[in-house]
Amino acid sequence: MRTFKLTLAYDGTNYCGWQIQTSQVTLQETLERTLTKITGEEIRVAASGRTDAGVHAWGQVVSFASQTHLEPPVLHKALNAELPLDMVVRSVAEVDADFHARRSAKRKRYRYVIDDGPERNVFELRYAWQCPVRLDAQAMHLAAQPLVGQHDFSSFETSGSQRETSVRTVFELTVERGQGGDRVTVEIEADGFLYNMVRTIVGTLVEVGRGARTADWPAHVLEARDRKAAGKTAPPQGLFLVGVIYE
Amino acid sequence: MRTFKLTLAYDGTNYCGWQIQTSQVTLQETLERTLTKITGEEIRVAASGRTDAGVHAWGQVVSFASQTHLEPPVLHKALNAELPLDMVVRSVAEVDADFHARRSAKRKRYRYVIDDGPERNVFELRYAWQCPVRLDAQAMHLAAQPLVGQHDFSSFETSGSQRETSVRTVFELTVERGQGGDRVTVEIEADGFLYNMVRTIVGTLVEVGRGARTADWPAHVLEARDRKAAGKTAPPQGLFLVGVIYE
Repeated sequence: MRTFKLTLAYDGTNYCGWQIQTSQVTLQETLERTLTKITGEEIRVAASGRTDAGVHAWGQVVSFASQTHLEPPVLHKALNAELPLDMVVRSVAEVDADFHARRSAKRKRYRYVIDDGPERNVFELRYAWQCPVRLDAQAMHLAAQPLVGQHDFSSFETSGSQRETSVRTVFELTVERGQGGDRVTVEIEADGFLYNMVRTIVGTLVEVGRGARTADWPAHVLEARDRKAAGKTAPPQGLFLVGVIYE
Repeated sequence: MRTFKLTLAYDGTNYCGWQIQTSQVTLQETLERTLTKITGEEIRVAASGRTDAGVHAWGQVVSFASQTHLEPPVLHKALNAELPLDMVVRSVAEVDADFHARRSAKRKRYRYVIDDGPERNVFELRYAWQCPVRLDAQAMHLAAQPLVGQHDFSSFETSGSQRETSVRTVFELTVERGQGGDRVTVEIEADGFLYNMVRTIVGTLVEVGRGARTADWPAHVLEARDRKAAGKTAPPQGLFLVGVIYE
């Protein structure tokens, strides 16, 4: 048995998220079907984490075991020839047998893109949250800083999920207005994320950005440890899994 | 009667081009239907020019006559509320009765985007030509410069079109590699364009960029005044009508 690590980019628009579901097309199912076609084996993959319907990835990481004799560059070419156009393998490597895309991950980085131009941007409908109100990106950045560090993020977790702990460490959280002028980008790197954590943090920061809440509000939301204290969950299409960091 | 000028952006992916055709959804038909709904009149619009299926616009300009009492800002809001999400009005103005979006146009500017990264860019499938070979953008730029000026561009016109003259003046033609590193952008401004002229120029310059032809080839193609001398027509999804310049 050999173990492989794939780095994958995808446009999540046309998929019902990462994880296999009955009777709906998912990214995992599409990748596994393609790997089975190429290797002739029944392959099951492990991803660094699931992404929801409509969420994109630039650097999703996947691991799987296979008895294939194909070398990584051959596997790489074959995958990109067989995968649908909206999925692409960026790299393939053979790794130690103990590598696991989710369990070995040390940090993950997400980006959330908001377009707050005066009219909707027709070229960003699938890749940004179209926000009709001009945002104060600097106020959002300052308001976000109390979330950096090790905290209980249960205020930013969609209820119903079952985790041993809702304590996570955020290493970096920045909000910046991009060159174009109408684009606000939130970047967040952490040792792990609760369900909908990035989208709920973004929904909360946007309340500050549009002036509905003061800059100290996100810190109070964090302290409340109650999902009802936070803002709305931002829509999926602005969210990108940028990359996963391993040791 | 009042005359209005609209500036329009659209993602052309889901339309069979600009011009009205029987039994296919076009941009013109969609805009006219929306204007009729808002004004209660049968409205016919004139565009600066047609765009083909899959071609996009950032600054298409349209004129039309109407008896509506609605003021431009009201019309602007109503249009963006009623148009499909992949079309957006960027500005509305009332203009002199002799303004005509096509006949009054002095210059038009197009951009063509090529992605030549090592793998396809899943987020640019609808907005760039995915070129599997690394291009020499500087060689393309130099090779393009003999096309600047007043010339007979019949080598770059898809045959079958009927024009009085195929002489046009190109004011600017640049080829640049963008910041990202994997993006080559061709920009061209002229007093008018023949059918498929931008896409045929791009298809010809790419032959130089990938090393299949030398840098003096596009000048020879121009001199030949024969479509068969030129390169292939580049695919539509990389093409954007950037804007139209009036007096």
